[in-house]
Amino acid sequence: MSGDVLNHAFRLASRPVGLPTRDNWQFTEQPVGEPGDGEALVRVLDISLDPAMRGWMNDARSYIPPVAIGEVMRAFAVGRVIGSRHPDLKVGDHVSGLLGVQEYAVVDRRGLNKLDPALAPLPVYLNALGMPGMTAYFGLFDVGRPEPGQTVVVSGAAGAVGSLVGQLAKLKGARVVGIAGGPEKCRYLLDDLDFDAAIDYKAQDLGRALRTCCPDGIDVYFDNVGGEILNAALARLARHARVVICGAVSQYNAREGISGPANYMSLLVNRASMTGFMVMDYGSRFAEAGQEIAGWLARGEIKTQEDIVTGLDTFPETLLRLFSGEHNGKLILRVAED
Amino acid sequence: MSGDVLNHAFRLASRPVGLPTRDNWQFTEQPVGEPGDGEALVRVLDISLDPAMRGWMNDARSYIPPVAIGEVMRAFAVGRVIGSRHPDLKVGDHVSGLLGVQEYAVVDRRGLNKLDPALAPLPVYLNALGMPGMTAYFGLFDVGRPEPGQTVVVSGAAGAVGSLVGQLAKLKGARVVGIAGGPEKCRYLLDDLDFDAAIDYKAQDLGRALRTCCPDGIDVYFDNVGGEILNAALARLARHARVVICGAVSQYNAREGISGPANYMSLLVNRASMTGFMVMDYGSRFAEAGQEIAGWLARGEIKTQEDIVTGLDTFPETLLRLFSGEHNGKLILRVAED
Repeated sequence: MSGDVLNHAFRLASRPVGLPTRDNWQFTEQPVGEPGDGEALVRVLDISLDPAMRGWMNDARSYIPPVAIGEVMRAFAVGRVIGSRHPDLKVGDHVSGLLGVQEYAVVDRRGLNKLDPALAPLPVYLNALGMPGMTAYFGLFDVGRPEPGQTVVVSGAAGAVGSLVGQLAKLKGARVVGIAGGPEKCRYLLDDLDFDAAIDYKAQDLGRALRTCCPDGIDVYFDNVGGEILNAALARLARHARVVICGAVSQYNAREGISGPANYMSLLVNRASMTGFMVMDYGSRFAEAGQEIAGWLARGEIKTQEDIVTGLDTFPETLLRLFSGEHNGKLILRVAED
Repeated sequence: MSGDVLNHAFRLASRPVGLPTRDNWQFTEQPVGEPGDGEALVRVLDISLDPAMRGWMNDARSYIPPVAIGEVMRAFAVGRVIGSRHPDLKVGDHVSGLLGVQEYAVVDRRGLNKLDPALAPLPVYLNALGMPGMTAYFGLFDVGRPEPGQTVVVSGAAGAVGSLVGQLAKLKGARVVGIAGGPEKCRYLLDDLDFDAAIDYKAQDLGRALRTCCPDGIDVYFDNVGGEILNAALARLARHARVVICGAVSQYNAREGISGPANYMSLLVNRASMTGFMVMDYGSRFAEAGQEIAGWLARGEIKTQEDIVTGLDTFPETLLRLFSGEHNGKLILRVAED
């Protein structure tokens, strides 16, 4: 088929300052590539849009090299094998991996995970059974380590990672307080996910709300947002609290440098710790975590929500919803129907 | 003797904004008190001046209640028993405890530790065998946990805690880099304490100096100062680094609120942790640590330096040397000769 079929892709044209705009992207059309030995040609179906993508656009030393100018934008996605030169992969197999923001990807077998669409819908493999699920699982259980009866606070609570963190903490017997923006998200946390309390940071005084919702202080704070919300949570830590640094979505587009948490000395007064983690470090345990999460999903003990936007060409604008908060649950860009 | 003898004391007259001035103190003269049952009357000899004292002057929720207005300023000190109504304590015994900034103190036996002046000079009980020693020992070994060959960076490195942290890290086989203010302090670190490198933060570009001195990054950063030095150290963390938050002397007199470490996201990229601790939590292990430190002192494997200023009446000005850095090693106010 290759040669006849064209692949459309979003490539990085320039590095954004602040929020990325359409000018930062180049939309290209090229013949689909041929898989080499050990590779597969994959039709991209659903692309995961993640806050971390903003960091990959910066030319800065980080945990992973930046996307180069002219390179297809890096993204995690699910797809269907339509050509294979590896014995493990057959045409029709479903896979996930770093397929990029494009319609077709040629990827080495080692960069692909086989999926079973009978076990869960494909978008769930980008959510509870994908990176958000692994991030919530290892960040909460390995770094946060909540105990029954303790108070867990999570920011970005209606997002993909945050909503899972809260639900997993409830499964472990913790009291869970979610911080989210807007009444609709807070209603979702309370009514659909059974959080013990929800704080609308756009409408409420955060310090006062945290005092009310966490009378004995915060034992585990799982931070996805940074900025003033992190700072307010630090001021309410309980003795020996664990702060999990998972992300700082409020800061990724900052033009004037990140603002640091002025209340960090609360770590000293409360003998508390603030720890960063990278989900990739837990790769050897993904299968184990995935099985446990799949069980909870199958028994209806956790719920996921995917916000699916259709059309590769909407990518530049859809990506921005991550930073404006205009999405509910895991944000996914649908490139093609399975 | 009581009734005939007068006790002079510094009491808190008002809460300072910024650096404390003489106006914040009331110098009082009152008859010496009588010890009650289980108490001793102690002649105060040497008073420890500590950065933490600045925090005790604020009316803020913290790990210990603030000093009340009108109360004798809280301070750790050594003294000699001159009256006793407890069978354990005899006139002539030497003790340490929270004796306060005054000439005589009446203290319950439970608040006093007996000292052996034959084992070490009294000022050493306020230094390596006192709180600075315990702080360095538990902060470094329990929280920082350096391994042989790793790079340990300590700020306030020529101070009481910092100079011990560096020497203990050397004993454990780590490479030690000290950050201090001025060429004299840096010379002391290199020539007298055998640090591997010293950075003069007043004269050098801190970011560049840390890159040069820590080519493989910082494995343990022991922070006594906060502010821009903490921020620069965060930018140079090695994978799985441990940041120990012991103090923030650069921030204690800030009038416009503490400035938070903008580079805290380095914790995430480097899977690192930042942990606060309180030396009082290790009280049950002080004796064990003291024995080990006494051994190192006796064998000349660690050195201490005390900067002794004589005269209770100099207290308001002498205290300020902690924040200007105009002292070498442990700052001590001598009230009386033994």
